[in-house]
Amino acid sequence: MATKVGIIVLSGTLDKAMPAFIIGTTAAAMGMEVGMFFSFYGLNVIHKEKMKNLKVSPVGNPAMPIPVPQIFTILPGMMDFATAMMKDMMKKHKVPSIEELINQAKELDVKLYPCQMAMSLFGYKEEDLIDGLQKPAGAATFLNFVNAGEKSLILNF
Amino acid sequence: MATKVGIIVLSGTLDKAMPAFIIGTTAAAMGMEVGMFFSFYGLNVIHKEKMKNLKVSPVGNPAMPIPVPQIFTILPGMMDFATAMMKDMMKKHKVPSIEELINQAKELDVKLYPCQMAMSLFGYKEEDLIDGLQKPAGAATFLNFVNAGEKSLILNF
Amino acid sequence: MATKVGIIVLSGTLDKAMPAFIIGTTAAAMGMEVGMFFSFYGLNVIHKEKMKNLKVSPVGNPAMPIPVPQIFTILPGMMDFATAMMKDMMKKHKVPSIEELINQAKELDVKLYPCQMAMSLFGYKEEDLIDGLQKPAGAATFLNFVNAGEKSLILNF
Repeated sequence: MATKVGIIVLSGTLDKAMPAFIIGTTAAAMGMEVGMFFSFYGLNVIHKEKMKNLKVSPVGNPAMPIPVPQIFTILPGMMDFATAMMKDMMKKHKVPSIEELINQAKELDVKLYPCQMAMSLFGYKEEDLIDGLQKPAGAATFLNFVNAGEKSLILNF
Repeated sequence: MATKVGIIVLSGTLDKAMPAFIIGTTAAAMGMEVGMFFSFYGLNVIHKEKMKNLKVSPVGNPAMPIPVPQIFTILPGMMDFATAMMKDMMKKHKVPSIEELINQAKELDVKLYPCQMAMSLFGYKEEDLIDGLQKPAGAATFLNFVNAGEKSLILNF
Repeated sequence: MATKVGIIVLSGTLDKAMPAFIIGTTAAAMGMEVGMFFSFYGLNVIHKEKMKNLKVSPVGNPAMPIPVPQIFTILPGMMDFATAMMKDMMKKHKVPSIEELINQAKELDVKLYPCQMAMSLFGYKEEDLIDGLQKPAGAATFLNFVNAGEKSLILNF
């Protein structure tokens, strides 16, 4: 019986969604059974329109390698600049994009669950979300999935 | 022997405390044994006064559905506005409040541990915290709790 | 066979690195086998120069006990002020510094893995990082480490 890996995605930023999918697809490629549960702002990652505009935020992240003092990070355009810089770095180093990672996840049979409660909270309908997802589910469905493995790993991004 | 679930709450914001308690109470309702460990800013969630004013921050969170450009998020009142908007959405969709979730957790015998080190760091006394908590504890006590299960899940919010 | 604990450090801030090392060293002192995997901004924590300037950010963290309204947190100097305040609190309460925690981790045989992909993304070379690390590795190496235990705990900071 395979190890089950449960990944909760609560953040809607590029710098959280990327590592979540990298861990998820790697674990699936190693033969683990992986489920990802998208809730709160994490729903954006699987939202047809919003997934195209995931950002990184330099504001409040003193560890981001942005060549300006923190006070300038709040200026209009800085978030887009930081996001473009990050996307550019990723492309240059052949890190797959979110779209590519989602496709890899689907091919590797990673199960992608939208959180029912968060969908109703933000007013998202099933047709607003990308194709190939599991039925909207709650925390119990997700915990049952994770707990059914011989070994269970659970992570929260 | 039941699955043990250990949840570390390091964040003192509403949008991290909510999912932490939703996972915790759901796991407990499913028969798992759940311990929650509140450290660093997470202590605010079980602080008698501060728990009444948990906020969400639109600053530095480009994924939050706030209808203003990021630069305005730093203005006085915006954090309260975003928090009120979120609380309103939760109430409208019958998502329980933090107070209700804490009560559910206690009823389901979820063990709530304040972190001893963080209490002394922030100068909080036991009487500053809500009733019904375990004795202040350290990381070893918490890890022992989690590790004692036949299966162990550990999460960090 | 011991419990394996895998800790992913994605954040490059003091208030995430500290609890990551406290959990890691505590688990190792209890006899668990611990591996820590530093990726994205978390690489800063094991970067020879950048580790000296890890900060906490009051911006976008409404739970930080800073005695000024949120709008002032963006001002030049506020992040350094908040960081100095936090470091001072930690020193006064004898919480070990990051340097001390890293040394403790090495003495307790905690394995510290820099993420290969993040190193190439940010242009860091092995000689830019502190001594005593494992060879740069990927998510598969890390997941293999964690999954090899009789019991496996995995956390993400």
